[in-house]
Amino acid sequence: MMDIPLNIWTMFAAAQRHYFDVEIVTSFPDDSRHRYPYGQFAARAQQLMHALDSLGLAEDAVVGSLAWNGFRHLEAYFGVPGSGRVLHTLNLRLSPTELATVIDHGGDVAILVDPDLVPLLEQARALGGLRQVTHVIVLDDHTPEADLPGLVAYEPLIAGQATSYPRTPWAESRPLGICHTSGTTGHPKGVVYTHRSTVLHALGVASGAGFALGPSDCVLPIVPMFHGNAWGVPYAATMVGAKQVFAAGPFTAQRVISLLRDEQVTVAAGVPTIWIDVAGHLHGPRPLPDLRHIVSGGAQPPSSLIARYRRDFGIPILQAWGMTETSPLASVAWPKHHLRGLPDEEFIEQAASQAGLPVPTVDLSIRDGDGAEVVWDGEQLGDLYVRGPWVADSYLHGDGVEQFTGGWFRTGDVAVGSPGGYFRIADRTKDLIKSGGEWISSVDMEAALMAHPDVVEAAVIAIPDPKWLERPLACVVPGEDAVPTLDQIHEHLTAHGFARWQLPDRVEFLDQIPRTSVGKFDKKALRARFPA
Amino acid sequence: MMDIPLNIWTMFAAAQRHYFDVEIVTSFPDDSRHRYPYGQFAARAQQLMHALDSLGLAEDAVVGSLAWNGFRHLEAYFGVPGSGRVLHTLNLRLSPTELATVIDHGGDVAILVDPDLVPLLEQARALGGLRQVTHVIVLDDHTPEADLPGLVAYEPLIAGQATSYPRTPWAESRPLGICHTSGTTGHPKGVVYTHRSTVLHALGVASGAGFALGPSDCVLPIVPMFHGNAWGVPYAATMVGAKQVFAAGPFTAQRVISLLRDEQVTVAAGVPTIWIDVAGHLHGPRPLPDLRHIVSGGAQPPSSLIARYRRDFGIPILQAWGMTETSPLASVAWPKHHLRGLPDEEFIEQAASQAGLPVPTVDLSIRDGDGAEVVWDGEQLGDLYVRGPWVADSYLHGDGVEQFTGGWFRTGDVAVGSPGGYFRIADRTKDLIKSGGEWISSVDMEAALMAHPDVVEAAVIAIPDPKWLERPLACVVPGEDAVPTLDQIHEHLTAHGFARWQLPDRVEFLDQIPRTSVGKFDKKALRARFPA
Ligand SMILES: Nc1ncnc2c1ncn2[C@@H]1O[C@H](COP(=O)(O)OP(=O)(O)OP(=O)(O)O)[C@@H](O)[C@H]1O
Ligand SMILES: Nc1ncnc2c1ncn2[C@@H]1O[C@H](COP(=O)(O)OP(=O)(O)OP(=O)(O)O)[C@@H](O)[C@H]1O
Ligand SMILES: [Mg+2]
Ligand SMILES: [Mg+2]
Repeated sequence: MMDIPLNIWTMFAAAQRHYFDVEIVTSFPDDSRHRYPYGQFAARAQQLMHALDSLGLAEDAVVGSLAWNGFRHLEAYFGVPGSGRVLHTLNLRLSPTELATVIDHGGDVAILVDPDLVPLLEQARALGGLRQVTHVIVLDDHTPEADLPGLVAYEPLIAGQATSYPRTPWAESRPLGICHTSGTTGHPKGVVYTHRSTVLHALGVASGAGFALGPSDCVLPIVPMFHGNAWGVPYAATMVGAKQVFAAGPFTAQRVISLLRDEQVTVAAGVPTIWIDVAGHLHGPRPLPDLRHIVSGGAQPPSSLIARYRRDFGIPILQAWGMTETSPLASVAWPKHHLRGLPDEEFIEQAASQAGLPVPTVDLSIRDGDGAEVVWDGEQLGDLYVRGPWVADSYLHGDGVEQFTGGWFRTGDVAVGSPGGYFRIADRTKDLIKSGGEWISSVDMEAALMAHPDVVEAAVIAIPDPKWLERPLACVVPGEDAVPTLDQIHEHLTAHGFARWQLPDRVEFLDQIPRTSVGKFDKKALRARFPA
Repeated sequence: MMDIPLNIWTMFAAAQRHYFDVEIVTSFPDDSRHRYPYGQFAARAQQLMHALDSLGLAEDAVVGSLAWNGFRHLEAYFGVPGSGRVLHTLNLRLSPTELATVIDHGGDVAILVDPDLVPLLEQARALGGLRQVTHVIVLDDHTPEADLPGLVAYEPLIAGQATSYPRTPWAESRPLGICHTSGTTGHPKGVVYTHRSTVLHALGVASGAGFALGPSDCVLPIVPMFHGNAWGVPYAATMVGAKQVFAAGPFTAQRVISLLRDEQVTVAAGVPTIWIDVAGHLHGPRPLPDLRHIVSGGAQPPSSLIARYRRDFGIPILQAWGMTETSPLASVAWPKHHLRGLPDEEFIEQAASQAGLPVPTVDLSIRDGDGAEVVWDGEQLGDLYVRGPWVADSYLHGDGVEQFTGGWFRTGDVAVGSPGGYFRIADRTKDLIKSGGEWISSVDMEAALMAHPDVVEAAVIAIPDPKWLERPLACVVPGEDAVPTLDQIHEHLTAHGFARWQLPDRVEFLDQIPRTSVGKFDKKALRARFPA
């Protein structure tokens, strides 16, 4: 068999020859849309490769991107690694201090930045960051006033360049990208993706056990391109020639729905909170007839949400699980063939409320404290380990070595294997509540709380307790019509199978649950707010 | 990223842990069915690995399989390479002489054989074949009387073995399988698949640009496991945990339909002639509601067939193209997102009647006699070249070196690129008809002929002509009701766009078109029968 390296060109080669007429759509906050075909995208991405060369950047330079989802960011996804360089996606929701740290931790020498994010970058620099940065490329046709080194505008920079670039046979092991973890549990750590891992991951994402993406699809990743490569969707979609839709800037449920509808989106992906918002604006039995499925990942979607989409809108929600360290997709909870026809409740219990079945090439293991595999009985909790060709074997600069052991990566997630071969995330190791020697899953309690009609959102954290070590505290966003009492909450949780000793002694009612930079419940913030 | 080799275990590891309860069904000619779950399959495949060790076969031994589709053949697909050995699938439709040649060409030292094929193997041996074969393993619970070396029965052989085998990290470049080409155009040539190529191919087959296979699917490959790895379906399906259905022995359209229906098959794959047969026994607008799509490959399906499935049965036929040398899948004609809604005729012209868009990682090139890329205008013919990580870089024992040039494989197919980025196979280089300096595509003329209501099947070959060099001869199987005249055929072809000089001067009416060992029209046989 031919010895051909899997690299960025593997995913890019067909764009011009075969998919030149497929559209890439970018929606802006005012709902105006930019659209162009793959042919133009491919030409511009190659112009960017030449432009990076023309700036004199080293062939293995790290180039940061501080940008919303959109066509220029997609050009960078291919243009930076196509020229041999490494794309470091930067989380635009970080504070200037964190951003400065992450940029310098990645070793960025150039940064591609959206115009509205230039002030953030200036602040990061004013705080002493961007030490090695020599070029800042503003993703626009002109540069703003800004105190940043080597400021140039993207459009004039690429304009004069040749539209075709030599297809360099980059080695599979060559770094292609860097992404830092969200920092939900501690300081963000850097993960380095290679050409090989990115191509294999894209094949996994495109597979029928992943998101099942092909040329007939139109995808809308409502997950940021600045984190976890938007779950690999831009790479997978480009590789298979799917139409792509991006929502730039902050967005609303209405904008998401109008994109889903107008662009005839067939597959969309996002965190559960988005699907909660969107559900509030959908009506009728088949509001989005083109939408084949929604992938929900990053956090556990409430079962009630999955049930609602299935029952009210006829839209399957597929839960997915993954981490920055796993490129990020590692599992999707596709119903097995023989489960497809089950009644709603069983279907959700056995498949849809699970975090998944592993995407091909990914291996999972759930272990007890002694490292022995726990029984997959739907009850026993254990530490989740993962391995595979797109799973990190280290963090950047040697951080967190203790998480890599015996060829496996210890995820920090607590999982339960089901008797049907699925697994679900019970919690994060750091979020489990240890009360009187027994574990309470914060995630399970949150899911149960959110099934209550008068609860919109709920997050459960541990508070220290002199007698029991830790006790659960429920933070609840009540509905508009009624606020549940503590007694009602106890009753509800009891009906959902919680034991007496597990019930929270206290409920805090909030206007909203604080969110992390990627929209997850920020339990670090809640713990700071409710220290006891 | 972790350095984990892509090998047979990559596709096998989830079978036991995650998919143990998914069914594998084998149907026999009397329509009785054997069924067992993946858990048992995985255990037995590992028993086979131990059994091969116990026979003392070298770790890199070539093990032939002369078998129909079925569960024991699937066990061999994993058991042989799992233990490091090489599976050589043998075409059971070869003559004993050809079979003997192919077995010894592959270097087989052991052969797995279905009981009803033992006599064929004996004949091959009697003709001087099987020179290195030391063990013949009959896929049954007992051995028949037979003059074959080291005869043992499969069931007692594996029965005592351990059901788990060490997951050896076989190198990616290690040979995993051998398959010989069909011999449609000449002597069968051997192609060696590696662990890496097989895993990557399985990912391509499972992708949404391939057959789109996932855990919710039930697949029926009506293509033989003895040739081209049944298009990679058994590997891809096992990898993603799809339910699998096999039809053992010769089969009828009725048996295929009852399997499609009873087993709720979602994806089926086979050559066009099968779908012609099946169409004759389908009725009603949605006769097979579970069937998402049919993949048709190996030869050009008539457009009229695609139209009929689409219009009458609501079943999409996806044309695929590939060769033994390309593992075999190289392209599938998925309609692009913006083509989905076209009226039938345009849809078929632009997408469904094309041979495809390349499956990710595969690269295509269509070249003129000087090696320059031809224009993709839907008109110009050229030689089709292909490259990719699952494309052969040589034939076994150095055969056909002239087909491998400059990092590309010259397929021997003649192709036309469409303005929409698709391509179709116009003919084989050896089947094109050269009349008065111009080319006539035999395939195009066949397709047009088969669209005639009184033509069931048609094959067109070149016959030598003193004046024009070659002239087309149409071999036609007429319908039951009427036999078209030569004039009517001329009229019909003219209406389908054929020029006067292209029309066949002669038509031969046959009871059936002779078939090759894999069911393709056998033009070698027709040329022998009609030398002038
Ligand atoms: N389907 C899911 N169900 C429950 N949790 C999920 C799911 N998918 C992802 N997660 C959570 O998201 C985590 C991965 O998120 P990510 O890599 O973005 O950073 P983070 O873990 O939130 O941040 P950090 O590692 O810096 O603390 C997983 O470890 C898991 O806890
Ligand atoms: N969709 C298709 N349309 C037209 N022809 C096809 C299609 N798919 C496959 N084929 C034909 O089948 C060939 C591959 O078949 P295979 O590898 O089984 O052996 P063969 O080419 O028939 O035999 P040999 O190479 O020994 O002559 C292709 O080269 C092509 O000619
Ligand atoms: Mg984490
Ligand atoms: Mg051939």
